[in-house]
Amino acid sequence: MLFPKSFDFFDLFEEQTAQLIRAVECLRDLKEDGDLKKHSRKIKEIEHDADGIAHKILSSLNKTFITPIDREDINLLAHNIDDVIDEIERTVNRMNIYKIDPIPSEIFQIMELIYKASQEVAKGIKELRDPKKRDQVLKYCEIINFIENEADDILRYIISKLFDEEKDPIMIIKLKEIYESLESVTDRCEDVANVLETIVVKNY
Amino acid sequence: MLFPKSFDFFDLFEEQTAQLIRAVECLRDLKEDGDLKKHSRKIKEIEHDADGIAHKILSSLNKTFITPIDREDINLLAHNIDDVIDEIERTVNRMNIYKIDPIPSEIFQIMELIYKASQEVAKGIKELRDPKKRDQVLKYCEIINFIENEADDILRYIISKLFDEEKDPIMIIKLKEIYESLESVTDRCEDVANVLETIVVKNY
Amino acid sequence: MLFPKSFDFFDLFEEQTAQLIRAVECLRDLKEDGDLKKHSRKIKEIEHDADGIAHKILSSLNKTFITPIDREDINLLAHNIDDVIDEIERTVNRMNIYKIDPIPSEIFQIMELIYKASQEVAKGIKELRDPKKRDQVLKYCEIINFIENEADDILRYIISKLFDEEKDPIMIIKLKEIYESLESVTDRCEDVANVLETIVVKNY
Repeated sequence: MLFPKSFDFFDLFEEQTAQLIRAVECLRDLKEDGDLKKHSRKIKEIEHDADGIAHKILSSLNKTFITPIDREDINLLAHNIDDVIDEIERTVNRMNIYKIDPIPSEIFQIMELIYKASQEVAKGIKELRDPKKRDQVLKYCEIINFIENEADDILRYIISKLFDEEKDPIMIIKLKEIYESLESVTDRCEDVANVLETIVVKNY
Repeated sequence: MLFPKSFDFFDLFEEQTAQLIRAVECLRDLKEDGDLKKHSRKIKEIEHDADGIAHKILSSLNKTFITPIDREDINLLAHNIDDVIDEIERTVNRMNIYKIDPIPSEIFQIMELIYKASQEVAKGIKELRDPKKRDQVLKYCEIINFIENEADDILRYIISKLFDEEKDPIMIIKLKEIYESLESVTDRCEDVANVLETIVVKNY
Repeated sequence: MLFPKSFDFFDLFEEQTAQLIRAVECLRDLKEDGDLKKHSRKIKEIEHDADGIAHKILSSLNKTFITPIDREDINLLAHNIDDVIDEIERTVNRMNIYKIDPIPSEIFQIMELIYKASQEVAKGIKELRDPKKRDQVLKYCEIINFIENEADDILRYIISKLFDEEKDPIMIIKLKEIYESLESVTDRCEDVANVLETIVVKNY
């Protein structure tokens, strides 16, 4: 058969955001026990699982002639969701390597925003298959953009505070990188929102 | 009506570069009074205005069936011009947060190159609608590439000098980031030049 | 004539990877004599030559109506190979600016991985024109991904060691940047592998 099977890209994207949700729940657990080693290892596993799903989406795409939404948007969406998870993994790994203990409360504040933005990403993906949910998807995107702006403002304030208060240059190097990495996570969420927006505006 | 109105993308791009010019004129004003707080706030406003225009271009694009130039090039051009302005805003914000006072003369040297490159970007956008101006647009792109190379050379020299002369690691962290951020602005100008070049070569 | 000549994109890509191989051989020579100044200058020349080839590919693309593989993949492949060389040049330039002497053995360990990944990139490009070599190209891509993972693991270990052992913040700033820059080189090799994979899966 030329077309041995068809792929439900929406199902695959939901599998991908399920991994994203696993990752951000891990961030919440981190708040409970502060055990960077344990959660860093766990998020590494999640990132690996997510990689497998992203690869499945891309290889399915290359075997499919007719796609429900534009090929380049499927490609971009899969990459962008994967990038959110990668950046979360990278951040927690760095926190572990740098032995950040205790974890400054500002970090949990940003992680909470990442948790919320990821929930909106997952909701957007869930409704993407339904043209009648167009306005709802756009609403989720708007919330993600709002959260990204909020995270940006908080991070600028935190970095300013870091340079005002911390006198140890090595600690500045460590925390600055982690703050920037957290900012990057929210930027990657915004990238997902931008693709979601493009998809619904183009298609529905 | 199916097509309630048509969009003049060239006009919208000119609106966008008008904001870019406002931003780089703000950099020049900064040289006069060194008031980072004031100019940082002003550039934040400009960046916000520019965001609105970029969003207008992208939503117009999604509502338009026939475009004067390839859709993906319109998309890319809007994003890339926006990225120049974002990076300028980010740089001046960091200078303000880091309380860079006095501002090293090297920074103004690079800002002057950014000013020039942005003028060429604006000229390129202005002539883009006229196929007869093809060679002029290519000339502006060449100048932007030349400026980017010059900025790159100067920044490498400045970073080398920074590590030779500055002994305070925290000051090195601050200035290194700002120099890299300035380099990034010229890289983003070059990205715009690359899209402009692609557009005229493809279309005229 | 409308079509004065046709371009052999595969030949041009091979010219491009020949420059990449020159660059990584330069990294090997660096191991012999540790002469950063000499090899930094040489890699700058190679990067310049490579730039010319990339530009030739992109301008050929803009003059060609029928391409052997998708236009956007040619564009992406040319940019991505160029990015590998740029990042190698940037890394060695920084090592020179920072006067890294002696060069830590960890750096040569990663450079050896970069050498290997680049060889696989060159092999993949060489076989790309032959549909019968599809599975071999995919095999090279797999090896590149494997090498990138290995480099990632090693670099995380090295950065952890750096913060545990080095007490001079300025040396930490320098080496951290160089390690991240080396990681970036392997990331850029992986980007090339991703495009190669897309091309063979789409076309053969």
